Amino acid sequence: MVKVGVVGVGAVGAATVLSLIERGGMCREIVLVDLDSRRAAGVAADMRYATPLAPTVEVRAGGYDDLAGAAVVIITAGLNEKSGGATDRSDPEGRRRLIGANAEIYAGIVPRVVAAAPEAVLMVVTDPPDPLAVLTRRLAGHDRVFSTGTLIDSLRFRVHLADRLKVRPRDVQAMVVGEHGTSEVLLWSSASAGGTPVLDLLARCGEPVDLIRREIEDDIRFANITIIEGTGASQYGIGVVSALLVEAVLRDERAVLPVAAYYPPYETTLSLVSVLGAGGVQQMFEPAMSEDERAGLERSVVALREAAERALAVLPDGA
Amino acid sequence: MVKVGVVGVGAVGAATVLSLIERGGMCREIVLVDLDSRRAAGVAADMRYATPLAPTVEVRAGGYDDLAGAAVVIITAGLNEKSGGATDRSDPEGRRRLIGANAEIYAGIVPRVVAAAPEAVLMVVTDPPDPLAVLTRRLAGHDRVFSTGTLIDSLRFRVHLADRLKVRPRDVQAMVVGEHGTSEVLLWSSASAGGTPVLDLLARCGEPVDLIRREIEDDIRFANITIIEGTGASQYGIGVVSALLVEAVLRDERAVLPVAAYYPPYETTLSLVSVLGAGGVQQMFEPAMSEDERAGLERSVVALREAAERALAVLPDGA
Amino acid sequence: MVKVGVVGVGAVGAATVLSLIERGGMCREIVLVDLDSRRAAGVAADMRYATPLAPTVEVRAGGYDDLAGAAVVIITAGLNEKSGGATDRSDPEGRRRLIGANAEIYAGIVPRVVAAAPEAVLMVVTDPPDPLAVLTRRLAGHDRVFSTGTLIDSLRFRVHLADRLKVRPRDVQAMVVGEHGTSEVLLWSSASAGGTPVLDLLARCGEPVDLIRREIEDDIRFANITIIEGTGASQYGIGVVSALLVEAVLRDERAVLPVAAYYPPYETTLSLVSVLGAGGVQQMFEPAMSEDERAGLERSVVALREAAERALAVLPDGA
Amino acid sequence: MVKVGVVGVGAVGAATVLSLIERGGMCREIVLVDLDSRRAAGVAADMRYATPLAPTVEVRAGGYDDLAGAAVVIITAGLNEKSGGATDRSDPEGRRRLIGANAEIYAGIVPRVVAAAPEAVLMVVTDPPDPLAVLTRRLAGHDRVFSTGTLIDSLRFRVHLADRLKVRPRDVQAMVVGEHGTSEVLLWSSASAGGTPVLDLLARCGEPVDLIRREIEDDIRFANITIIEGTGASQYGIGVVSALLVEAVLRDERAVLPVAAYYPPYETTLSLVSVLGAGGVQQMFEPAMSEDERAGLERSVVALREAAERALAVLPDGA
Repeated sequence: MVKVGVVGVGAVGAATVLSLIERGGMCREIVLVDLDSRRAAGVAADMRYATPLAPTVEVRAGGYDDLAGAAVVIITAGLNEKSGGATDRSDPEGRRRLIGANAEIYAGIVPRVVAAAPEAVLMVVTDPPDPLAVLTRRLAGHDRVFSTGTLIDSLRFRVHLADRLKVRPRDVQAMVVGEHGTSEVLLWSSASAGGTPVLDLLARCGEPVDLIRREIEDDIRFANITIIEGTGASQYGIGVVSALLVEAVLRDERAVLPVAAYYPPYETTLSLVSVLGAGGVQQMFEPAMSEDERAGLERSVVALREAAERALAVLPDGA
Repeated sequence: MVKVGVVGVGAVGAATVLSLIERGGMCREIVLVDLDSRRAAGVAADMRYATPLAPTVEVRAGGYDDLAGAAVVIITAGLNEKSGGATDRSDPEGRRRLIGANAEIYAGIVPRVVAAAPEAVLMVVTDPPDPLAVLTRRLAGHDRVFSTGTLIDSLRFRVHLADRLKVRPRDVQAMVVGEHGTSEVLLWSSASAGGTPVLDLLARCGEPVDLIRREIEDDIRFANITIIEGTGASQYGIGVVSALLVEAVLRDERAVLPVAAYYPPYETTLSLVSVLGAGGVQQMFEPAMSEDERAGLERSVVALREAAERALAVLPDGA
Repeated sequence: MVKVGVVGVGAVGAATVLSLIERGGMCREIVLVDLDSRRAAGVAADMRYATPLAPTVEVRAGGYDDLAGAAVVIITAGLNEKSGGATDRSDPEGRRRLIGANAEIYAGIVPRVVAAAPEAVLMVVTDPPDPLAVLTRRLAGHDRVFSTGTLIDSLRFRVHLADRLKVRPRDVQAMVVGEHGTSEVLLWSSASAGGTPVLDLLARCGEPVDLIRREIEDDIRFANITIIEGTGASQYGIGVVSALLVEAVLRDERAVLPVAAYYPPYETTLSLVSVLGAGGVQQMFEPAMSEDERAGLERSVVALREAAERALAVLPDGA
Repeated sequence: MVKVGVVGVGAVGAATVLSLIERGGMCREIVLVDLDSRRAAGVAADMRYATPLAPTVEVRAGGYDDLAGAAVVIITAGLNEKSGGATDRSDPEGRRRLIGANAEIYAGIVPRVVAAAPEAVLMVVTDPPDPLAVLTRRLAGHDRVFSTGTLIDSLRFRVHLADRLKVRPRDVQAMVVGEHGTSEVLLWSSASAGGTPVLDLLARCGEPVDLIRREIEDDIRFANITIIEGTGASQYGIGVVSALLVEAVLRDERAVLPVAAYYPPYETTLSLVSVLGAGGVQQMFEPAMSEDERAGLERSVVALREAAERALAVLPDGA
């Protein structure tokens, strides 16, 4: 039976599990592991009562050993932006302020996950996901590691573009690449709907396109602040995203999505166009980019490399 | 477009919304109302980013006025067991300790909901749901009021029976009637799987049936304590249940479920077998019961009537 | 990747595939095998264009060899009631008239399926499914064989009861056991809704219950004639049923359903209460029955044993 | 309750109904109308037995009067390519050979549909859909008319591109515009995956792009021949497509899809980028096109205008 593990059953972990249950799909068994084992047990017991209403899935709390045989392990453990004091959105460091604390936590978790589930694909959700994925890859000693990267940012970009275009977000194609964080790059040049660049579609609205661009970038930023002020941290959107990514791996969908994996040409883990399926990210490529976008990506790579170094610093002699 | 309102966007409200979005179905627009308008706005913003991945649903925060035209309004506002100090599970009062505080809150909310959405069906989720549904019906001045009642208890009963029988919970038929609370009645006599009484099926296991009965009742109680100790309060199971009940109303499913509505023969609101569809509960009847079960139901009715009186006491001169 | 084979891609086979694709679930790859390889190729090509709109499933035509590794193989090949001249509904033989022709066809098919997919669960859909399942079990030399049995009959029973009770069919519990054919037994005594016998619920309608019983039995018969006169043979309902049964096996649901498997006490294959999961039917038991129902079941067993003999007669020296 | 009508319950109509039932969504009631009322009754009776397994939908056969109140009416009645003798795929006329016969049939049907359901959106599926939509719009006297157009062709394009790119078809963006027929235009210039032109992605494969283009165009043509030789006509893919389009209207999704509606600048009905929601196509625009593609579109417009004239010729004095 196809098993999925969740390490860290806070708000994001729980939303992911609820979404996995509701969506049915390939997942048949879910094991919840949390430092606070009472929390894991409580969430498992609560979720179980939803299962008669959805395709059969078993949910239970467990220890690391219970991850044995898991096809995917989702790691959401760690401090979030609020508990880690990273809510000053004008701070260029942003989520990177969480690196030290969460890298320590990962250094404790990942070896135990890998010992129990050596074949599992590891999906990093904790902030900042990209440097933590670098650390996870090093700790795991294999390449079946990816992070949720900029997929949630890309969905935000699509939702706000769709608002302006007055169409269904599903039909707007737009990506954010680079860091899931302050250096991320919105790919305006390739964003499209109905086979037509969104910049052309927006231009037809009558307002100056540069103004609309800035407004949409503000919409995204404003929505993020609204979430953080309202509930402390993004959890429902990222939970659904995480469930969907797990399904893409389990089903070997070869989905084309902006999630982050180690990309040898840049010697770090970042979101580009990734093909996600069995084993994790099977292929990556750089999308078409304008010169500005490429320059932005390069800046993001620099920031990510530096952040990765800081994450790796928790290893004994930078191993 | 079919609109659903949610008043009170805590953990239960949010799980309900996530489940409504994931399930698709009839609901097209969801309005979130919360005393803490920043929380409603935060949850709405967060949920929106899940919507490109599911059938089109709009989620937004609003005030009571924005409930205009809603087909169903879900009320989850109020203190929960933990915040209301009702976590001593040996206390025979149980959730009824919350009546005073939550009746006051409902007295403030319901008239505003009814003023904005006079045609809406009102679904009460807040604990204790049955007395609060009596109050809501009085405040609303109409009969399109029901509570989630003992549906979640019935699911728990089914899940733990299924554990023993080693079958899928969906295929175990079992109901809990009466109060969603300490006086609830598990209908062992009519519980069945595959057209066969579960008591017969359990008897084949070799253990004394009375012992197994007690163990299952303990399993249910134990799981509930596990949830409360783990996360403070049941939220995911009840969220999925709430989404499913809303769908039954919107789709006029004429679903046969143990939810609570006003039942004239007993002059109070309690869970019996209810037929749920357009307009709420369209019909109710008493299931087959053993003498003991009937006696238990009568005790539950007494407790519910008294609790309803306490809820109604918030009205000026008991109006 | 989880693979399902379909041998015989007529109307029923195609409806099954469409339903498997639409439902998502565990199935990831579907191989279509048909004597008319052009038909298999045509259906596969047509279905493929629906797949971008549903969870990823690959559908392709193939030969028996391509069934290698299939978890379940669905066999729908053979003459149907119309092509086999079994449409005289007053004929007590009914579908059994197809035994000779379809047993010959199965004798050609099953060994090739088993050679290619020795580990697969085999699901028999072709009429008459129960004797053909006996033959299939003998040819396969293993016990992972079941037929769709009386599940479709049970759904018909539930739908027509629900019509009378004016409730959702999903919430009516009712089973038909014995033969999928003229000797089938409707279990009126255990049919229930909301924990209450349907005979009691129907009695409250005011009409004599015996009259209503006869009318419902006529409704079922009439609907069947309507289907046969309209389209030649039942195909859509049975297609959805087949997809659902496959999912129960793949997901190891331990679903409790009236499908047919070999039941040692009766030394034949018939529908009783079956627990369906990994490996096929894992457990069977006889539901509670009235004396009349039990007598009916015994007559059905006699008819099924005789029919099974006729199916086995295609084997060299009744092997 | 949201009602959908289906006029013409052949293979395509039935596949559409099965898909509507399986998908749940907004549709609550389906009325089947067919010249052969026994066929409609048979399909309805058969489909009903699938409904306990899916969200509540009522399916019934009826006459035109029963379409009253339908939100959408799907018209699939008429000769198909095989019965109409339009299977010579080298014939540049293609589906247009069916115009005469099917326009006569539509002249009989549409006024009766509009008389019964004057507010309904009309969706034309019968071949050739675009000229028949012109005729339908004239007969209906309103603009809530669209055809399935080139959406199925676009899905074919996406599936075969995805084959070459070895990714999930859902993530390939590609459209076919103009006629659903021999003059259709594949928009290679705007086809993309992961924000990158597919022509660039294909170029990386090492083969000359022009060769790959021709091969993909052949793949599409070959698959179509495979379908027609195998089952007589495309039915399952188009059925799923039709169900999805109905849902987009009922849910007011503002989906961005290549379906056909009347486009004033070209004075005919053709597929461009259409925004589909309540009331049908709410907006249309021309996607970005290369010069060759634009020239192809203009040729398609000429063919469509002429075909529309032939369809309109069934009206008394070309009314």
